[in-house]
Amino acid sequence: MANKLKVGILGATGMVGQNYLRLLEDHPWFDVTYVSASERSAKKAYEEAVAGRWHYATPIPMAIRNIVVEDASDIEKAKGKVDFVFSAMDLPMKEDTKSLEMAYAKAGIPVVSNSSANRWTDDVPMLIPEINHKHTDIIPIQKKSRGFSKGFVAVKPNCSLQSYLTPLFALEQAGYRIERVILTTMQAVSGAGYPGVPSLDMIDNLVPYIGGEEEKTEQEPHKILGRIEGSRIVNDESMRISATCTRVPVVDGHTASINVKFAERKPARDEIIKIWRAFRSFPQENKLPSAPSQPIIYLEEDNRPQPRKDRDAGKGMAVSVGRLREDSVFDYKFVALSHNTVRGAAGGGILNAELLRVKGFLG
Amino acid sequence: MANKLKVGILGATGMVGQNYLRLLEDHPWFDVTYVSASERSAKKAYEEAVAGRWHYATPIPMAIRNIVVEDASDIEKAKGKVDFVFSAMDLPMKEDTKSLEMAYAKAGIPVVSNSSANRWTDDVPMLIPEINHKHTDIIPIQKKSRGFSKGFVAVKPNCSLQSYLTPLFALEQAGYRIERVILTTMQAVSGAGYPGVPSLDMIDNLVPYIGGEEEKTEQEPHKILGRIEGSRIVNDESMRISATCTRVPVVDGHTASINVKFAERKPARDEIIKIWRAFRSFPQENKLPSAPSQPIIYLEEDNRPQPRKDRDAGKGMAVSVGRLREDSVFDYKFVALSHNTVRGAAGGGILNAELLRVKGFLG
Amino acid sequence: MANKLKVGILGATGMVGQNYLRLLEDHPWFDVTYVSASERSAKKAYEEAVAGRWHYATPIPMAIRNIVVEDASDIEKAKGKVDFVFSAMDLPMKEDTKSLEMAYAKAGIPVVSNSSANRWTDDVPMLIPEINHKHTDIIPIQKKSRGFSKGFVAVKPNCSLQSYLTPLFALEQAGYRIERVILTTMQAVSGAGYPGVPSLDMIDNLVPYIGGEEEKTEQEPHKILGRIEGSRIVNDESMRISATCTRVPVVDGHTASINVKFAERKPARDEIIKIWRAFRSFPQENKLPSAPSQPIIYLEEDNRPQPRKDRDAGKGMAVSVGRLREDSVFDYKFVALSHNTVRGAAGGGILNAELLRVKGFLG
Amino acid sequence: MANKLKVGILGATGMVGQNYLRLLEDHPWFDVTYVSASERSAKKAYEEAVAGRWHYATPIPMAIRNIVVEDASDIEKAKGKVDFVFSAMDLPMKEDTKSLEMAYAKAGIPVVSNSSANRWTDDVPMLIPEINHKHTDIIPIQKKSRGFSKGFVAVKPNCSLQSYLTPLFALEQAGYRIERVILTTMQAVSGAGYPGVPSLDMIDNLVPYIGGEEEKTEQEPHKILGRIEGSRIVNDESMRISATCTRVPVVDGHTASINVKFAERKPARDEIIKIWRAFRSFPQENKLPSAPSQPIIYLEEDNRPQPRKDRDAGKGMAVSVGRLREDSVFDYKFVALSHNTVRGAAGGGILNAELLRVKGFLG
Repeated sequence: MANKLKVGILGATGMVGQNYLRLLEDHPWFDVTYVSASERSAKKAYEEAVAGRWHYATPIPMAIRNIVVEDASDIEKAKGKVDFVFSAMDLPMKEDTKSLEMAYAKAGIPVVSNSSANRWTDDVPMLIPEINHKHTDIIPIQKKSRGFSKGFVAVKPNCSLQSYLTPLFALEQAGYRIERVILTTMQAVSGAGYPGVPSLDMIDNLVPYIGGEEEKTEQEPHKILGRIEGSRIVNDESMRISATCTRVPVVDGHTASINVKFAERKPARDEIIKIWRAFRSFPQENKLPSAPSQPIIYLEEDNRPQPRKDRDAGKGMAVSVGRLREDSVFDYKFVALSHNTVRGAAGGGILNAELLRVKGFLG
Repeated sequence: MANKLKVGILGATGMVGQNYLRLLEDHPWFDVTYVSASERSAKKAYEEAVAGRWHYATPIPMAIRNIVVEDASDIEKAKGKVDFVFSAMDLPMKEDTKSLEMAYAKAGIPVVSNSSANRWTDDVPMLIPEINHKHTDIIPIQKKSRGFSKGFVAVKPNCSLQSYLTPLFALEQAGYRIERVILTTMQAVSGAGYPGVPSLDMIDNLVPYIGGEEEKTEQEPHKILGRIEGSRIVNDESMRISATCTRVPVVDGHTASINVKFAERKPARDEIIKIWRAFRSFPQENKLPSAPSQPIIYLEEDNRPQPRKDRDAGKGMAVSVGRLREDSVFDYKFVALSHNTVRGAAGGGILNAELLRVKGFLG
Repeated sequence: MANKLKVGILGATGMVGQNYLRLLEDHPWFDVTYVSASERSAKKAYEEAVAGRWHYATPIPMAIRNIVVEDASDIEKAKGKVDFVFSAMDLPMKEDTKSLEMAYAKAGIPVVSNSSANRWTDDVPMLIPEINHKHTDIIPIQKKSRGFSKGFVAVKPNCSLQSYLTPLFALEQAGYRIERVILTTMQAVSGAGYPGVPSLDMIDNLVPYIGGEEEKTEQEPHKILGRIEGSRIVNDESMRISATCTRVPVVDGHTASINVKFAERKPARDEIIKIWRAFRSFPQENKLPSAPSQPIIYLEEDNRPQPRKDRDAGKGMAVSVGRLREDSVFDYKFVALSHNTVRGAAGGGILNAELLRVKGFLG
Repeated sequence: MANKLKVGILGATGMVGQNYLRLLEDHPWFDVTYVSASERSAKKAYEEAVAGRWHYATPIPMAIRNIVVEDASDIEKAKGKVDFVFSAMDLPMKEDTKSLEMAYAKAGIPVVSNSSANRWTDDVPMLIPEINHKHTDIIPIQKKSRGFSKGFVAVKPNCSLQSYLTPLFALEQAGYRIERVILTTMQAVSGAGYPGVPSLDMIDNLVPYIGGEEEKTEQEPHKILGRIEGSRIVNDESMRISATCTRVPVVDGHTASINVKFAERKPARDEIIKIWRAFRSFPQENKLPSAPSQPIIYLEEDNRPQPRKDRDAGKGMAVSVGRLREDSVFDYKFVALSHNTVRGAAGGGILNAELLRVKGFLG
């Protein structure tokens, strides 16, 4: 990659936006040159805009501190300054995020989004590069039908499904179709942002509910595993999923307990582990900078994966899996873990952008 | 109950033993008159034996402080001093606990046990009074075949299944047979005793494994739901159960996420809640002192049950249930919670003894 | 006490207000007959007004559920319905709380307040009944100078000083004047209300700062230990206090580490413990219903007091003290603990009202 | 440094030993070539010896996995294989550690120790390189008087004082002598090793006691700030220290709340911050590989330092300080934080070895 691309962050002052800035420091392909947020933060130096609200242990990247924050709703400001933007916007009305992202695309600026707003827009790809990198084929169709010249919108799915979907996909790809999945997640508090979950709910306690999370966990895989037909992505609903999503006193790292039933034939236990360990896909083959060299790590110890010990595997981009055992009701059960604010949020967005660049969509 | 019975605690210095003492203070039917533990504690006043190791917020009961601890392995010491004993022993070798409990029974002292040692002894009832109070019918058979005069052994099941089994039983009793159950538990650290789970494993972390717990959770219900045939209890394995058991940073209260498939017909959601709320059984009908007036409490709020808020329902003896919803894979899913050191341990043992007394087994 | 007094709660829907309702259920002297809150909650049944926001493990008291919440700013509504009110109001502007409490007093309704608004009003007593019950003598002066007939305002101090001030006062009362105090608190999250402290700040973390808390901790004792001169309470600043206040991942119970230097002579270690254990005051002598029989409990164990084990001592109204040892810089150091939402908030308010009743100020 | 030195780890399987291995991976000057532990671990490959007990998120360093663990009590085994050893031994009898370290030294192997065993041996330097690097001058004296050829023992102090002693030293060095210090620590659980502190003590709780810790915290500074006289280090007791040490639910990072009284004159607040920020010493001037470029970091935010956010400053080797304010009893108070298992344990040991190498003591 000869030239670095100029990148903007929409919603740069929130927790996800901050994580983009942290993870993009020293990125080999992308340079953050533009940050925007709500009107309230606009016109302030970035450092001032997040004063007392910078959430990470590493300091605000030097190159960002003095950049003036712009108003994210003013698309004109971004024009000419960026090759594409990461959207970490979270407007009060989801419809507003949806249409603002489209307006950026219309203005010629590709949007790689972390938001849930356009996930069900049927010509917008919802990407996990290891699984459905081919869904980028919808982008020319999206651009054409919407009359976009250079811009487009691509999104990533919810953090709650990142732990289990790649392991399941690896098995399907190896020829073992999965029919039913029952799972319970134990999700970290960072998924709710800041201030997010009150400490009174998380000391000597857990909360067995996260609003809207179970629906996303059950349905988004259908689009990710779907196929392009004409001008839209059509869901594949053959893998039926039932999810219970809970919140536990963990900072980072979503854990899931998963029971799986195969459709026709089922692999032996050893074969499953072999398939997981051997699994590689487009990001690994193309050596995308943020791709983990081994996307699925299987741990032999009885008591793993554990959030604090395993979330940072592959710099937070790998999935850690363990406890695979035969299931007295379905075929197998296992435990999986992924870093919700890296692979499940900003890191996943960055990997999407890397995928889009090597495929030539980001100029 | 005219006269109070004299009760001994075997294993009185451990965490479960301490909880028996705490919960039996002011019990209307039982008076603790005898405590025993390992040889190391023997001959000391109870207060001295647990110095620095009393785990409860309420102080050591006054009546117990100066009782001299006896050696639990010396059965002669207990003779004539107690009408029955609670066993909270946890010897290094499970076989030793098993045979020592039987030796007490042989010596004429009924044993109401918290230990797992005799759970699979086929003429020993494993009791949840709301479910299988009729299994006490095995006791005369046990006594006869083993040549016991007054003594016998009765046990309670593992804490991990107390949250979900009573709600499932209530539905079966109402005519809705259950075929399959998939569940994931999030269990409190008090279940592992003291020192138990290291804090390094429980700060910003969870551990998706508890040794031996999944087997107990899956198999013990088969005996509880079984029936007496000849001189033994025969398992009912019609309800197939798959469990994943995890440890989370909660002091007390085991939570479970449960997916259920009915065998033939399934009730409507409203009917399930109605069945749960109306459920009463022998302990309620006979007003056992430790019986919760409502054994199954259904909570309407989306985010309940929660361990810290709901574990003390019914003085720790009720099961709290919530989040009942239709399941895209099985028929229904819900969340259930029970207090692991009250209903799941000492409190459950005491309720068993109350059941045994009203049935005339404790003299 | 022949007749129960009718009591209103101002700010009844917040966490402190809820705790008043919880602690007053079955109170022998007071009946809650009136609840008020912000305009937003007004006209709703109490149960509806706090739906999803009731913070306690015990359910909303039956007698309160259907009481209609009134607008706390409408004093007329309370007239004739209550003998006095507890104020748990926390208006955005402290000045508004201050003047609204005075307006209730002017309208003939005594106000026993939990708020900090009137703590520094110089004719308002700031009461810890074990220490300065005689400060109620300012009430007739307050009423006269302000032209109040029956009403007046009395307040309680901040929760952060409850752990150490009574033990220090006991020593002063025994003739050992204290000159200097250096202390560090480790305060529970419930002190910040709900949602309060974000869980991201309290998992694997602590925060060494609580806004405004150190000032209150250092200065309020001066008024509590002061004396009435003419129409006001004059501070006694002879005990100089330096406080560092931190927030730790504990639900309830403020712990303090305290170093003390005596003015002239210092007691022996044994004598200090003896003084603490023997300490009794007006609330004990008059058997106020909420008074702990032993206000200062000294624990011999090296590792006590601990929040979870000791906060409920004396039903949350006693102070637990431990680790008294000679100090290489000052004279002595020790650790003290008090329940911040019972003694430090609603429970302290109730004890104040009990004091005021036996002294004849509440009709 | 042309050649890397060969290094052994005594006590390599414990938590501190593991941390040495983790931090020494890719060290520019030192290569771990030898590991030893108790007899129980001896003869096993390292990976096998720590199976299920490796405590860090990063995997066991590749180069170490297959090294065979030797018996630490067998000094002959180490001879010829190492240029020096790090001692992370923690034998049941402190005297045994003390004499075994001396035996290694006698056998010609320098010992850089993390243990407390030889801290009060009066010809053994207790080093914080930023403070008393000159105490290495005692080493030739130690060697001569004990008849050691190449070997010697040097130690590091306890983790609990690392947060506050360097900031205080910086002020003394700038000419502001300190007379009195009162402090309370809030220490992380990793300081107690594994299994260490039970989770039942650390959920919704803190423990205001750590055995032996207050004595170390108060007394070790006297030796560190002392001077060499003849053949021994003589304490400087001019700075009187009173410490209360508590355990809080934090994984890593000891926080301290400190009150300071100067002897004669006191600096202005701005000057203190300037002194801290400008402070550099031998490790910085000599660019020791593990030295933080800025040893004392002052944070302006009201609510800092916080363990999770600040412990990793300077790769865990810097001290973070904040909340400097005038003190109503002493002169100033502030909050300080240091990473207990990096600067306070293995990282501190490594910095000591770097210091010893550039001074020519390690061949």
